[in-house]
Amino acid sequence: MEKPVIAVDAMGGDYAPSEIVKGAVEAARSFDVNIILVGPEKTVQSELSQYGAGRANISFCHAEETIGMDEEPVRAIRRKKDSSIVRGMGLLKAGEASAFVSGGSTGAMVAGALLVVGKKKGISRPALGIVFHSPNGRVLFLDVGANSDCKPQYLVQFAQMGTVYMQRIHGVSVPRVGLLSNGEEETKGNKLARSAYHMLSKDQPNFVGNVEGAELPRGKADVVVTDGFTGNVVIKLSEGLARIFADMSTSAEADGNSLDFHEAEKRILDYTSLGGALLLGVEGNVVITHGKSDATAIERAIGIAEQMVKQKVMETIGT
Amino acid sequence: MEKPVIAVDAMGGDYAPSEIVKGAVEAARSFDVNIILVGPEKTVQSELSQYGAGRANISFCHAEETIGMDEEPVRAIRRKKDSSIVRGMGLLKAGEASAFVSGGSTGAMVAGALLVVGKKKGISRPALGIVFHSPNGRVLFLDVGANSDCKPQYLVQFAQMGTVYMQRIHGVSVPRVGLLSNGEEETKGNKLARSAYHMLSKDQPNFVGNVEGAELPRGKADVVVTDGFTGNVVIKLSEGLARIFADMSTSAEADGNSLDFHEAEKRILDYTSLGGALLLGVEGNVVITHGKSDATAIERAIGIAEQMVKQKVMETIGT
Repeated sequence: MEKPVIAVDAMGGDYAPSEIVKGAVEAARSFDVNIILVGPEKTVQSELSQYGAGRANISFCHAEETIGMDEEPVRAIRRKKDSSIVRGMGLLKAGEASAFVSGGSTGAMVAGALLVVGKKKGISRPALGIVFHSPNGRVLFLDVGANSDCKPQYLVQFAQMGTVYMQRIHGVSVPRVGLLSNGEEETKGNKLARSAYHMLSKDQPNFVGNVEGAELPRGKADVVVTDGFTGNVVIKLSEGLARIFADMSTSAEADGNSLDFHEAEKRILDYTSLGGALLLGVEGNVVITHGKSDATAIERAIGIAEQMVKQKVMETIGT
Repeated sequence: MEKPVIAVDAMGGDYAPSEIVKGAVEAARSFDVNIILVGPEKTVQSELSQYGAGRANISFCHAEETIGMDEEPVRAIRRKKDSSIVRGMGLLKAGEASAFVSGGSTGAMVAGALLVVGKKKGISRPALGIVFHSPNGRVLFLDVGANSDCKPQYLVQFAQMGTVYMQRIHGVSVPRVGLLSNGEEETKGNKLARSAYHMLSKDQPNFVGNVEGAELPRGKADVVVTDGFTGNVVIKLSEGLARIFADMSTSAEADGNSLDFHEAEKRILDYTSLGGALLLGVEGNVVITHGKSDATAIERAIGIAEQMVKQKVMETIGT
């Protein structure tokens, strides 16, 4: 098997390009991959010149423009043909890269994946998933924002895609699938959840039923599906609460005990150790890192992308 | 003005009847109210006999049955005419009590309020609200579970009811109203949220726009509205995360620093200091206490109920 080629958006995220390039250099040392850094070549070269080694398997794809976090995604993708996101997606589409990692605007990444790369055959809607640590192991939670309005069959597909991911990347042989709802009983839920419950019961042999909000962080299921509106509220609320808890630790900082709080925050929603959100259901492996990702987070995200390529996650989805 | 008469379900909650009766006795001492304890008279009398004083303003309403937490709400309300919930709602309906406080099944309380007491004129759907502490003051969040599927106009009514509550009970002269959504921009949201945004912009002069999940616990608005499915996921997730954070403190317990975690948990979603969830939009003041409420929480819930009666919350809603 050839080395996986991972395109990395050098301009995406709050600490771009320096932390991205640093993370890419580290990933090029740690993993058996070829990396294409996408961005303004001069800027990227200048960053890269700081690192002596590990450049043999790093190449460039010039992209003059960047897409801002506040730009309307579809319009930005259509207009900024020479942006790092559109160029990175173009590498995926052309088969010149097998995965694309970016900490840019999630909306633009989703729009770019749909417009440039395209959906996987058999998938109605790609979904954005995050993996978090629960006291009972890792949980893949999706959709966290790609589809604000969902039909029940989308949620069934999310379950199928999530199952592939947890099998291939986390080695869970038969992932338990749960449905986020407002009660454990089959009769609970809004119209969408009740219909999805019915379909999941029929189609997913490993469906474990509804997962309530309180149970979600506990790992009652390996894959938990919901619509992108609710999923987005859930992950942002989790971040917000984690931050409030962490803020409360400031007073305890003096006696050195605050580490527990920060550790707690990390465990609830650890973008750093996860490496990013995954866009499942498009014709390429797409990893969207958190905007605040540092070099270590970027390196891990590239590691996830490498695994997705090697384990043929994209190829297995929708088949 | 006559003393408010508060009916209290002696059989509702994990620590019923002992903590309920104790809380009622304390409330009868603390507040200028008459209390009707609803439940099997012998059981309640026996509990009450432990307390020497404060019984002058406590009376009884016999109710032989109780409705379990797992019973189907509507069926339970229809069949168990002699349950403490149906009897308590009957007191409201007959005007013999101005408020009813119970820690029983939320579903049964909502069903009982709708079937026995009835909706307020002008209100399409009653909503369940909780008040939580944010770093910027109290926030009323609704609906947290009464309506799994909502139309946009329901959310506008929730905003109106919430505004009355925050004005009357918490003295916020012009409460800021926010809409829970998956992004700050007007264009964000699912269909429901986008329509509600449009209607709130027109109808609510103090509408401050969308509130993201991360901002919800921070108090960007005094009243935040959402559908009961999302709202229920949000409060249960908050409880679940708070519990996980608290669990993490166990290891730090030895050096006595764990109090901060428990304090944090309380601040995020403090049923004890809130006194309960409120059912707004029915022809009576209904307070639903958390199942784990102790006597202090019951006393506070009765205090909230007293304020709701005195401040004419129910009368002002829907007019």
